[in-house]
Order: sequence, then C-alpha cells, then structure tokens
Amino acid sequence: MVPRLTTALTGPLQELERRILDRMPDIERWLRTQWQEHAVPFYASVDLRNAGFKLAPVDTNLFPGGFNNLDASLLPLCVQAVQAAVERLCPDARGVLLVPENHTRNTFYLQNVATLASVLRQAGMRVHVGSLIPGLEAPLPVELPGGGTLVLEPVVRGGRRVGVEGFDPCVVLLNNDLSAGAPAILRDIDQPVAPPLEAGWYNRKKSHHFGVFRSVAREFAALIEIDPWLIDPYFGVCNEVNFQERAGEECLASNVAMVLERIAAQYARYGIDEKPFVIVKADAGTYGMGIMTVRDAGEVTALNRKQRNKMAVVKEGLEVTSVIIQEGVPTYESIDAAIAEPVVYMIDRFVVGGFYRMHTGRGRDENLNAPGAQFSPLAFETPCIPDLGGPVDCPPNRFYAYGVVARLAQLAAAIEIGELAERARAPALA
Amino acid sequence: MVPRLTTALTGPLQELERRILDRMPDIERWLRTQWQEHAVPFYASVDLRNAGFKLAPVDTNLFPGGFNNLDASLLPLCVQAVQAAVERLCPDARGVLLVPENHTRNTFYLQNVATLASVLRQAGMRVHVGSLIPGLEAPLPVELPGGGTLVLEPVVRGGRRVGVEGFDPCVVLLNNDLSAGAPAILRDIDQPVAPPLEAGWYNRKKSHHFGVFRSVAREFAALIEIDPWLIDPYFGVCNEVNFQERAGEECLASNVAMVLERIAAQYARYGIDEKPFVIVKADAGTYGMGIMTVRDAGEVTALNRKQRNKMAVVKEGLEVTSVIIQEGVPTYESIDAAIAEPVVYMIDRFVVGGFYRMHTGRGRDENLNAPGAQFSPLAFETPCIPDLGGPVDCPPNRFYAYGVVARLAQLAAAIEIGELAERARAPALA
Repeated sequence: MVPRLTTALTGPLQELERRILDRMPDIERWLRTQWQEHAVPFYASVDLRNAGFKLAPVDTNLFPGGFNNLDASLLPLCVQAVQAAVERLCPDARGVLLVPENHTRNTFYLQNVATLASVLRQAGMRVHVGSLIPGLEAPLPVELPGGGTLVLEPVVRGGRRVGVEGFDPCVVLLNNDLSAGAPAILRDIDQPVAPPLEAGWYNRKKSHHFGVFRSVAREFAALIEIDPWLIDPYFGVCNEVNFQERAGEECLASNVAMVLERIAAQYARYGIDEKPFVIVKADAGTYGMGIMTVRDAGEVTALNRKQRNKMAVVKEGLEVTSVIIQEGVPTYESIDAAIAEPVVYMIDRFVVGGFYRMHTGRGRDENLNAPGAQFSPLAFETPCIPDLGGPVDCPPNRFYAYGVVARLAQLAAAIEIGELAERARAPALA
Repeated sequence: MVPRLTTALTGPLQELERRILDRMPDIERWLRTQWQEHAVPFYASVDLRNAGFKLAPVDTNLFPGGFNNLDASLLPLCVQAVQAAVERLCPDARGVLLVPENHTRNTFYLQNVATLASVLRQAGMRVHVGSLIPGLEAPLPVELPGGGTLVLEPVVRGGRRVGVEGFDPCVVLLNNDLSAGAPAILRDIDQPVAPPLEAGWYNRKKSHHFGVFRSVAREFAALIEIDPWLIDPYFGVCNEVNFQERAGEECLASNVAMVLERIAAQYARYGIDEKPFVIVKADAGTYGMGIMTVRDAGEVTALNRKQRNKMAVVKEGLEVTSVIIQEGVPTYESIDAAIAEPVVYMIDRFVVGGFYRMHTGRGRDENLNAPGAQFSPLAFETPCIPDLGGPVDCPPNRFYAYGVVARLAQLAAAIEIGELAERARAPALA
C-alpha cells in the first residue's frame, strides 16, 4: 500500500492502472515475499514516466535528494519508515553519521540534507552531518534557504571506525552517490554503511539495473497477467563509446535502430499513435547530465561538437564510455502548461510520498531532470473510507500504481546491490 | 518516535516531560532492543492520566475500539504500521478475517470496525468481517452513522480452519475482547489469531498487567534516571470479593488504606498538594463498568445496594470476584470545561495517533470512560523542522512523552501475553 496522494491525473482509469488496483492484495503479498528474500535498500527514489498505455521507471536513485520537495504532511510517514529501517539495519543504533554530497553552494540540496537529518532525529537518532569535502578541517555552518543552519563536520577516522569530532556513530547513512569512487575513509570500517559502498555510481550501471528490472517485471507481469512491456522499457548498451573521438558511433546507431524498431512493433501491435523515440544517456551516473532524446538512428552519427561535449562527461567530470539506449516513454501528464513526471520516494519497503518534476521548456519526449525543472509536492488527498457494502464511492487511489512500479524498481535495485556486493567479495576469496 | 500531535497542554514543559524528550535517542534504542526480545501485540490502546508531576497508564486495551475517533490524517500512519504488522505476523497473508464484538446496535463501535477494515484493505488485505453473534445465519448489513454499510457475516468452521462463506482467510484479527471466554469455533485452528486467544479478558487480569508494568517501569526509570513512581501507579488486589454478599470488604478496606498511605507518603516527599484517591475496579474486563473513586478506606465498607450492584457485574453480565485497587492519578488536562485524558493508539510497535476522552460531568479524580464521554481527535501539529545549528526553535513534541509511556504499557502487555500463552501451553505438557 502507498499513501493516497493527489495526482495530475483526472481522466478515467487506464486499463493498466485498473488492473494494478484490482490486484492489490496479490501484489502486496508478492512484494512482502520478495522482501523476505532480498534486503531492502535503506531508501530510494524512482523517476517514472506514465504514457497512459505504459507506466515505467526510467531512473532509480539509491541516494535520493529532494526530500525537501516532499509535502510536510508526509514527514510522519518518513519518520515511521526510518524507524522500521533502523530496526532492520541496526537496532542498537543511536548515532547516525549522515554523509552528503560535497555541494556547499547548492542550498536546495543542503535543504534536503537538513530534512533528512530532521526525519532521522524525529525517529530518535542522534545525527551529525559528516562531510567528505576535501580540505574541510573544521565544522562549516551553511545557511539554509528555508531558515536555520546546517553544520557540515569533517569526517574523521580512528582505526576501523569513522565519525566526526566527539561523535562515534553506530551507522553511516550515505546520501552521496559516490560518482567518483568509494572514498578511502569509508572503506573497511566496522560500522554498517547504508546503502553499501558498492551501490555507488562508480560501481552501478543503469544497464545492470534495467537488466534485473526486466526479470522482476516479467515475474510481476505474470502475477497480474499483463504484457511485461507495459511496465518495462526496452534498452540496449554500448560499452566502448568516446563521444569526443567519435568512437562507437556504429554501435550507438545500430542500438538506436534496434530499440526504435522494437518500440514501433509494439506501437503497431497496440495501435498506439505515437512516434517512437529513445533516450541515450551515460550508463553510470545521475543528475540529468549527458542525456539526449533520439528519434532516428542517423542523429547519433551526426552530432555536432557542442552535443558531443555535452554527452561526453557527467558529474564530477567523469568521462562517459558506456551508454544506455533506453526506450523513451512519453509522459501524458502535465500540470498547467508544464510537462510532468512523477518521482516516488521509498524508505525501507514503504512508499512515503512523491512529487512531480515539471518543466515548461521541455517536450513530452524529453528528459525533465534538467536546469529549469520545478517541483510540485504531492499532498494527501482528502481521506475517505470506501463504502464497505456496496459499490466503492471513494475515488480510487491513482497514486497506487505509481507506488507499485516504483517498488518494482526498488526491488530490482535490491537484487542489483546484492549482486554487486557479491562481486565485491569474490576477489577476496580468489 | 511518535507523531507530532496537538495536545491540550500549553504550559511550560514539566520536568518529567522534559527528561523524556531529552533522552529520546536512548529511549528509542532501548525500546528497539525490547522488541527484539518480546513479540509486539498487533495493536493496543492505552488510557493515560497526566497529573503533571506524574504520567501513568491506567488501562491497556489489546482489542482497541475507537479507531473511528482518530483524525483522518492519521490513517496513512495506521496503514503503514499494519503493513509492518502483517509482514511480521504472516507475510503470506492476503485474506484477513476481522472478528468484532457482538454489538449490532452500537453503531459507533461498528464505525470503528469499518475504519479498521478500511485500514486493512488499504494495506493490501482482503477483509471480511466475521461475526460471532449467536444464531447469525446469513450476512447482516448494518447501516453506519458515517454513511455506508458494514456487513457482518457468520463465522464458519471447516476442520481446523475458520472463515466466512466463500472466504478462507490467512489470519484472524480479533477486535473482540473475549470477556465471555475463548469461543470454541476459534480454538485449535491452523490460522494465526492476533492478538492470541489467551489475551482475552476472560484470561487477563489488570493486576498481572500492572505487575509486569512495574518491572518495565523500573527498568525504564533506571534508564532515564527517574523515580519509577512517576510513571507507575501503586496497586493492591483482592481476589475473593462478592459485592452483593458483602464478602471481602476487609481486604478491600485494608488495600485501599495501604495504597492511600503509600500515595500520601509520595505526595509528602514531593510536596504535592493533592488529596490521594484510589480507583477500585474489576481485575478483568473493560468498558468502564464496575469502577469507583475512593478517597477513604471507610467508603468501601459503607456501600449502599445500588453501588454494590454497580460494582458486582461487568460486561457480558460477568460477576466480579477479583478487584484491583489502583492509585488514582488526577488529570490536569482539560479541553474547554471538560476534564480530559489522552488515549494513545499503537499498531505493531508504532504510535499511530490518539485522542482525548473528555467528560463534562466528571471530576479530575474520576473515571472518564463512562456514558457521556466525548472524543476530541488529536491532529498533526503544523510540521516544522528544528533549526539544526542553534537552539531549537520548533516547539517540542509534547505528545512524545505520551507515546513513550503508552509504549511501556504495550511492552508490559507483550510480556504479559507471553506469560499467558506459556501458561496455556503448560497443561498440555503435563
């Protein structure tokens, strides 16, 4: 079950949405049994695209920012879910070291850190924010746009433990996606690290995630008797791309052509009157950099210098060599004049809320996670209790389907992290 | 952690409240470790009395009614907590048989059942309401005051399973306090029953509960370095009382005198200017029947016929033979002109909300759970995030102390149920 939130949707229930709502008891039971087998990530956010005929995840973030974009009424759900997470992770915990990104000027991000710290405190934790900013030697107070101050303290290590001056935490909570690698100061420590270092973007690949998602989607689709394509975007991968040197263009072009063809076949099969497109993006990393919409295979061999530069690097200046070519899912949601896509937040195995990412300057077949994006928090709908005797007179929880698909992506991430952790252990055994 | 709710309290933080808030991380950690050792009851409600100098539970209900008195904004927390409870109890569950009290005319109670059923459905369960009403042979629809209909279906048994016609549940959830005994139809079934049959009032005794609570309170008091009396009411017990035959009056009088003396000694020690009183009530059962306030030992030997009749029987016409003499805790809370006491609700190990029980016709040293009581739901306070750098500019969560003391009572109930279940198994081994 997921919170009943307002959505941008007002039309009749789509067939897929209706099927997911109808099969809720089976879905919830299946998810519970999955979480018996796989360790649930501490938290996650999932970007979804809803085309009406198709509802699919397009990105799964294991170090979610944006908690400050959640409606304040959702914070009690976050607090309760954190309690469940802490109990599972480390019932003995009192002190949490929250390790954020190294941003000091992105105050919206820091507001997210402050919100997370507050949720942890309300869940009964002692919290310090331990920063990895190179050269930071003393606590650094940063003013927040919402008022108040966030203090970033240098992480210190003693033996196999980390903390900050005068504070020895029981657990390290990462809100840093480790694009640049697993920091030496956090390696081989005795405290549990959540999510584990292996879940960092230096180690994850979107193609791995969506490969696992494919299996999860198939099993789920069999459960509720739907075509798995309705929730699963096609994709291809090219591993030896160098945009600046124009290497790997043939691989890109052939993969783009292949994915476009497969989409076209499905559109024909379902009578969908849309022009297929793909999203080409770095196979590792985040932050909406290095992403482009492609509607024809010829486009990737005809990139100009500016486009190639844009695609060549992502966060932390890392060079892109691996690329995922993902089926584009048009969004049929909009708020006022802005195209919108839902972002769903989970803590432990609970959907705790979400918001719409909106962009007035982008089309319905474009990436919205770009400069100029705005956020519209989803608040609770006026709660109502369905008539228990006769027909349901309570409007259906339209947000439910979003919560289900987001949790499938979270489950795929759980399996993915398990595989990455196993791979990390393997060399030690060899 | 507990929801941040509005309370009737406006004055400065009392010393006890302040201590509990200050020690939050230690308290939450201690509670987590307790729940590693003891199985948490599915749900519970606890009646508290707050005297300012003292904050204590006076009744712990393992089959809580009154979910309809919770503010609608709290239902998402209930749903999330039910999911945690179901995962713990029976991850395989899809179908829940909810077994309520046999009331058909108390529509407020039935509204509670409808609310519970809705919460379970929103948590992804299939729910039928299975009634034990004698002679019920077909589904009985009952109109609810809030609109809608609740259908009570006769419980049917086949072999070692129970359900209703056409519905075989995975788990039986009791909302019937079993004052009249464990129903034969629910005994020795294969499905899990929550709370277990042994937790019924035919089997529980308040003196047992408060005896266990004493140990819990001592351990907790040592943790936060307070006098355990500040959260624990004194009590005595008389087991061979017959109000109609005036048997056991000496035991009653001497216990009343003993408890009054012990209270007076503490009032003197703390300089509290209050007149001690005790509450005399049946040692088993609920519903506010058979309860009286006593300020002098002489009162219990001078009861008139009407008073004796009132004390002699409780719910289901059961005769009272065992009586608990409990320290009275005056309430210093009021809403408008009504004396008020908080009732705190827990599902699984989470505080999900509460309300004030109020009575304009009762004094601050009287039982408020009586005809004429009204309910004031506690809603969320405007959420705010404390300044993380300097002094906390967010008002403290005054409801927190209530949630802590209520959870101590819930923990005592968990230990108590464990002992009752062990006792129930013992004869089978002999």
